[in-house]
Amino acid sequence: MANNTKNTQSNLDGALFALSLDRGAEASLQAQLCTALRDLLLSQGDFAGTRLPASRKLAQELSVSRMTVTAAYEQLQSEGYLLTRMGGGTYVAQDLPHLAPPAPRADRMPSQDRRQPWLPLSHGVADQNLFPHGQWARHLERAWRSPDAALLARPDPFGWYPLRAAIAEHLRLWRGLDCGPEQILITSGAREAFEIVFRGLLGGMGRSVMEDPGWSPMAGVLAASGSEVLPHRVDAAGLDACALPLDLSAAIVTPSRHYPTGRAMPLPRRIALLDWARSTGALIIEDDYDSEFRYQGQPLPALAGLDGLTQVLYLGSFSKLLSHTLRLGYLVLPVAHIAAARAYVNAVGPRASLIPQPALAGFMASGEFAIHLRRMRRVYGKRQKVLLDALMELDDLLELAPDPSGMHLCLPLRRKAAHALSDQEMVARAKAHGVVSKALSSYAVLPDPPQGLILGYAGFDEPLLRQAAKELIAALRPRL
Amino acid sequence: MANNTKNTQSNLDGALFALSLDRGAEASLQAQLCTALRDLLLSQGDFAGTRLPASRKLAQELSVSRMTVTAAYEQLQSEGYLLTRMGGGTYVAQDLPHLAPPAPRADRMPSQDRRQPWLPLSHGVADQNLFPHGQWARHLERAWRSPDAALLARPDPFGWYPLRAAIAEHLRLWRGLDCGPEQILITSGAREAFEIVFRGLLGGMGRSVMEDPGWSPMAGVLAASGSEVLPHRVDAAGLDACALPLDLSAAIVTPSRHYPTGRAMPLPRRIALLDWARSTGALIIEDDYDSEFRYQGQPLPALAGLDGLTQVLYLGSFSKLLSHTLRLGYLVLPVAHIAAARAYVNAVGPRASLIPQPALAGFMASGEFAIHLRRMRRVYGKRQKVLLDALMELDDLLELAPDPSGMHLCLPLRRKAAHALSDQEMVARAKAHGVVSKALSSYAVLPDPPQGLILGYAGFDEPLLRQAAKELIAALRPRL
Repeated sequence: MANNTKNTQSNLDGALFALSLDRGAEASLQAQLCTALRDLLLSQGDFAGTRLPASRKLAQELSVSRMTVTAAYEQLQSEGYLLTRMGGGTYVAQDLPHLAPPAPRADRMPSQDRRQPWLPLSHGVADQNLFPHGQWARHLERAWRSPDAALLARPDPFGWYPLRAAIAEHLRLWRGLDCGPEQILITSGAREAFEIVFRGLLGGMGRSVMEDPGWSPMAGVLAASGSEVLPHRVDAAGLDACALPLDLSAAIVTPSRHYPTGRAMPLPRRIALLDWARSTGALIIEDDYDSEFRYQGQPLPALAGLDGLTQVLYLGSFSKLLSHTLRLGYLVLPVAHIAAARAYVNAVGPRASLIPQPALAGFMASGEFAIHLRRMRRVYGKRQKVLLDALMELDDLLELAPDPSGMHLCLPLRRKAAHALSDQEMVARAKAHGVVSKALSSYAVLPDPPQGLILGYAGFDEPLLRQAAKELIAALRPRL
Repeated sequence: MANNTKNTQSNLDGALFALSLDRGAEASLQAQLCTALRDLLLSQGDFAGTRLPASRKLAQELSVSRMTVTAAYEQLQSEGYLLTRMGGGTYVAQDLPHLAPPAPRADRMPSQDRRQPWLPLSHGVADQNLFPHGQWARHLERAWRSPDAALLARPDPFGWYPLRAAIAEHLRLWRGLDCGPEQILITSGAREAFEIVFRGLLGGMGRSVMEDPGWSPMAGVLAASGSEVLPHRVDAAGLDACALPLDLSAAIVTPSRHYPTGRAMPLPRRIALLDWARSTGALIIEDDYDSEFRYQGQPLPALAGLDGLTQVLYLGSFSKLLSHTLRLGYLVLPVAHIAAARAYVNAVGPRASLIPQPALAGFMASGEFAIHLRRMRRVYGKRQKVLLDALMELDDLLELAPDPSGMHLCLPLRRKAAHALSDQEMVARAKAHGVVSKALSSYAVLPDPPQGLILGYAGFDEPLLRQAAKELIAALRPRL
């Protein structure tokens, strides 16, 4: 039996080492490896229980990065073909998916529709493994087992009131923003929030500015709402109100952490921006997406707090703080705009699902949410440091400065490095090594944009960050 | 003690019978009664445990409809002021909300933000009391306790695959529609589905037609997507393709159950409509919202099935079948349109929450969904009959014909009745009696619309339906 297993293992090793992957093919090396491995296991059923070669070994044999192999193993593991055992090692599962009873099971999805895991160093991804799934599931169960009569009554399109109350409390404690639950509108995300502001409050007319670099899909989102949006170049201190036209209907800003550079807007600029808005009557839309994760220093409170919520609308989201699965965000409205927003959402109807709302309200009211945020702040802070340390070798190419907050680093290219290789070329090279990054210049519309690499660290554990850093160094170093 | 209770009770009765409600006030009689009762209980704390007068008695004393009183009692019950005891009777709660510890509890909402229950005979409301909340909560808990890795991976903007597979199976069995999970796109509701079709597939251009009468907010929804939508008068057999222009980009139809009249489009009209679409290249958008609830006869399969899903896109929703709290719908796409829809949703991102999706997939795959639908079909069928029987007295005003399917009745006004009173006047009178109805003519844009009363029966139990019918008779009868 042991002998038999060993034979099977050398057969499997042999078959795997003999694979040939096509570097010119449209499918990625990882996808090709997945398909080949899947076909191999399905065509020959006798590998059940066999140990797979170590990822390092297989990567060597196939001349691919180790990450390509580990990602393929993970993919097949999530599909049920492979499993890992305590003490290490990846094995072929005993019951391969196709050996399951042939009844049409709705929970078995064809592999081509299986979702890819987030690849390092994707940004904007919360760590899902450290999320307290058990607590969250209990809140869901508790909220819906015998639901509050008000949950089943005619819904308030502003969302579930206790959640709005919990968000108001969160904003007071974490963001220095004093508002009432009646000012909070629950949305299915930033897109809906922008639609409500631009169609509901601004009537789908007028011109606005957004930061450049900035959240690039914004212009398309707003164009769909009938608004023209002008990109406005930011400097190291963010948007400069002195340079803004006087006939705008709104300015969209990320003062707590400029997206994607992570820089905070200093107080004088904030005051200038509020002065501009007050004198021109324009609205300011403050998009605050991950500044709860603050590692050093005292945060400036939200711009909306400084303004006392008169000219500033505040946008928040739970996708980055907790999980993208929620699809819940919120919009904090100045009192003067509540009626118009209510008229608009009454007409178009609510879109955010009610299902997660009472559970999230319970999760927040119980204090588990704050405990989770504080825990993730420690974890993410450590991860940022690990990534920066692991990238030390690239110090001559990238400015490796820590960021006092957030979930990703935006590392500017050093001038001499940028001459040799653009940020977009760097991103392409990293991709070939299995590392997902973003070029700062790809967030800009205006010419001659700043160059930098955007690396997400929040969603990945320390060994994976170190491995990704190694791949990134291998990708950027040999040619320079 | 017993004596004391009795004294308190007669005090409460006295105080209540002495209330004066203002018929000219902007607030409804029900809201006034709620406020008065709440103030009474809060200002005098010694009513705890006291039995309230019977709704019939209080209604008599205050000269309001009994429904006004029962609705007010229900409202205060949902707020925690009142409770009902086994064996009947409504009592003042022992711990009134304001007597709770004064800690800022996020799950306690101010009464002005409490949601109103659905009033009879609101239409489009599923019965929430008969929903298997326990099963549903267990599916939620099971799905998220230790979630499938794919749920936490990069999301497919088309939605959770096992749910799409379960919907495909449901459509095959219940609607005679043969499609694959890859053709199904999960949305946050019909608005998002229309946005995807009109912006993503039609590029926000062109003219379309919708039925008149029809779902009146449609024109606004589509105008926001850049499309012009022309109302087109339907006759008893629905939209007549022979009368359609040849230069349209789409026609939106409800062939299984015309909205809101409930009439089914006969086969010859369906074939003519498909011929028109094939010869002009226009899309047909089939909006199928509640035809799973079929009480008599053999249903025609979905138009999309007759078409083989080439020119027809099919829209479904769970809001009416299950619960409005889900905010989940879906769009079934012809294979040729999948790529364009995918490009669009990839760009704009998914909006339907993932949280309910795996739970709903489990609920459907386990068979509990089908059991629930069959149960509700029996219940709703009986309710329709109860409402029709209870309205028999209005036979000279309304055509009291049963509807073979659906969740509401659309009762046409008899010609001689319509001369005396329009459907909108009837609706206004019914409202004064606490009955919510809709005028068929209010669903029309074109002049000289048909007249009828739309009465929802699905969401209300039989005693409530009989009571509502009585109020409706009282509202319509005295003046004729």
